[in-house]
Amino acid sequence: MQTLRVELGERAYPIHIGEGLLADAGLILPHLDQPRVAIVTNTTVAPLYLPQLREALRAQGVESISIVLADGEQYKDGVTLNSIYDALVEGRCDRKTTLIALGGGVVGDLAGFAAATYMRGIPFIQVPTTLLAQVDSSIGGKTGINHPLGKNMIGAFYQPRLVLADTAALKSLPPRELSAGLAEVIKHGLVRDEAFVAWLEQNVEKLLDCNAQALAYAVRRCCEIKAAVVAEDEREAGVRALLNFGHTFGHAIESGLGYGKWLHGEAVAAGMAMAADLSRRLGYVVQADVDRIIALLKRAKLPTAQPGIAPGRMLELMAADKKAEAGKLHFILLDQIGAASIRAEVSSGALQQVLIGAP
Amino acid sequence: MQTLRVELGERAYPIHIGEGLLADAGLILPHLDQPRVAIVTNTTVAPLYLPQLREALRAQGVESISIVLADGEQYKDGVTLNSIYDALVEGRCDRKTTLIALGGGVVGDLAGFAAATYMRGIPFIQVPTTLLAQVDSSIGGKTGINHPLGKNMIGAFYQPRLVLADTAALKSLPPRELSAGLAEVIKHGLVRDEAFVAWLEQNVEKLLDCNAQALAYAVRRCCEIKAAVVAEDEREAGVRALLNFGHTFGHAIESGLGYGKWLHGEAVAAGMAMAADLSRRLGYVVQADVDRIIALLKRAKLPTAQPGIAPGRMLELMAADKKAEAGKLHFILLDQIGAASIRAEVSSGALQQVLIGAP
Repeated sequence: MQTLRVELGERAYPIHIGEGLLADAGLILPHLDQPRVAIVTNTTVAPLYLPQLREALRAQGVESISIVLADGEQYKDGVTLNSIYDALVEGRCDRKTTLIALGGGVVGDLAGFAAATYMRGIPFIQVPTTLLAQVDSSIGGKTGINHPLGKNMIGAFYQPRLVLADTAALKSLPPRELSAGLAEVIKHGLVRDEAFVAWLEQNVEKLLDCNAQALAYAVRRCCEIKAAVVAEDEREAGVRALLNFGHTFGHAIESGLGYGKWLHGEAVAAGMAMAADLSRRLGYVVQADVDRIIALLKRAKLPTAQPGIAPGRMLELMAADKKAEAGKLHFILLDQIGAASIRAEVSSGALQQVLIGAP
Repeated sequence: MQTLRVELGERAYPIHIGEGLLADAGLILPHLDQPRVAIVTNTTVAPLYLPQLREALRAQGVESISIVLADGEQYKDGVTLNSIYDALVEGRCDRKTTLIALGGGVVGDLAGFAAATYMRGIPFIQVPTTLLAQVDSSIGGKTGINHPLGKNMIGAFYQPRLVLADTAALKSLPPRELSAGLAEVIKHGLVRDEAFVAWLEQNVEKLLDCNAQALAYAVRRCCEIKAAVVAEDEREAGVRALLNFGHTFGHAIESGLGYGKWLHGEAVAAGMAMAADLSRRLGYVVQADVDRIIALLKRAKLPTAQPGIAPGRMLELMAADKKAEAGKLHFILLDQIGAASIRAEVSSGALQQVLIGAP
């Protein structure tokens, strides 16, 4: 097991990474205020890991209730959130009951927002079971739900007390989910670490084959990057925004298609290809950089173009993005592979060409 | 104009109190990030103060959209909250748009929670127009909505950047609202300041007559008490809980009757009479103290007994209260007039007698 820390003063917390951690409730115990938890998970994850986690907790004298949600981004909404509140009230969960998110990004975002707002905040633990959640969404305290007009439009910054990443869980991931997680892995490299991009270019097939050593390294490296960025800028006033590379396009794709059609990571992959293209059209990177990025995304079995949403509709959706200010879009663009900047003034001609997929 | 400060480090903010402050948008201007605000108010307050506030802002070059809610505690729910989100999205409000709550406690709680959670938090200003909101609910950052099974069950701690209390607005209050506000005024005295209770005993009729000087003094004294308590214990880990005196009973009355039947202050008044009675039955205060409290509440035209909800139902509702832990109720009880403590172990016999209103 390896342990990193997200250094956030009195809200600092550990990230434990390793094989089989799910069965070790002793790692969870020190973070509980009472021997009682509510586990939020979904119908896909529950049969795989819920009995194991509950049994491990029970063996340590911790009682649990479970709240099983439907699986998919299309359920990351107010209706599902309310079903969590109802279950917490009915289960007599109080201010000291810890909420555990067991699952991927959607489960973590929903459960985290419920924890942030039930009784004005209860203790929260992340047990991510997908690659995307282990390398990205479970760390840093972003929680929330979607609005029909905008991804993650309603939410809160709310840090967990612990992130427990059991890399054994990645073996059960369907290939499509694994690829979607690789999109965020590649993103960490593109915005912060060219050497990691080079490592990914060497190891992407190993990752797709669920090679345990390669996955463990990728998870650890992403957690290191993310933990450092979050510690520096918890509320996204600066450097943290760079981790949204590809997300302005990606969020527009997700809401344009209807949540749940493409996985979040798939939309981010296409969004990164588009953001790289825009960076090239504006002269920040060269075509060879774009080709290198697209080649890596393709090897990771990810889309590299948006799925045919009309450019006008894309623009409309992007204008509703959280990163827009006074109607002006902000883009994260590459300065080179391994470094990015946030830019507000972008030529609408170049943007238009990206949206229509001009050569 | 008088100005107090809530000392909360980087989240510190001023409370301005005075006549006619609503027309002085210059007080708001320094707290805005962009010349654009969304004003949340209700159908009762809008005709009285919304045009005045918008005009004052417009004169300073600040554009505003307005979101007008139905009036009443029964609307402090997820449906109304969603209508605020929808209006913010449709109005293209972004992370730098300030949300202004113009109204009483319900408007402030709803708008504050919307501000806390829209795009993971946008700037927020309280412009309380009722006595209850000016002396209590607008200060300290408690925001939230009700759940059918529990008052304020969903919410967040989210501090405003400014509280602007225009005491001229109190002249338009219906007598019932004024009395309801007096319940929280009296509460501040009972838990923290016997001299203020004595002052209230001298001045309660003046307050009911909307005597400007008396109201201004009462608002200022309550704000002083509240600001000091919040600065000491923002998240209610200790002393702040004392300000919930009467609220465990009061919340049970509100949800037992159905939200909106009694005003919050009315339920708190009956709850304080019950909590005083419980304090006496457990030997912390004497009958003369209880009589003194009940006499003051009656002079303020407030109820002093619960409205006939079955004791078993009251207990059930109280068990769902946020202050319960592992099924155990916590009560705020008086040690004397002007001082209170939080107590977990309460004889169920004494509680039963309070609930049935035994002599």
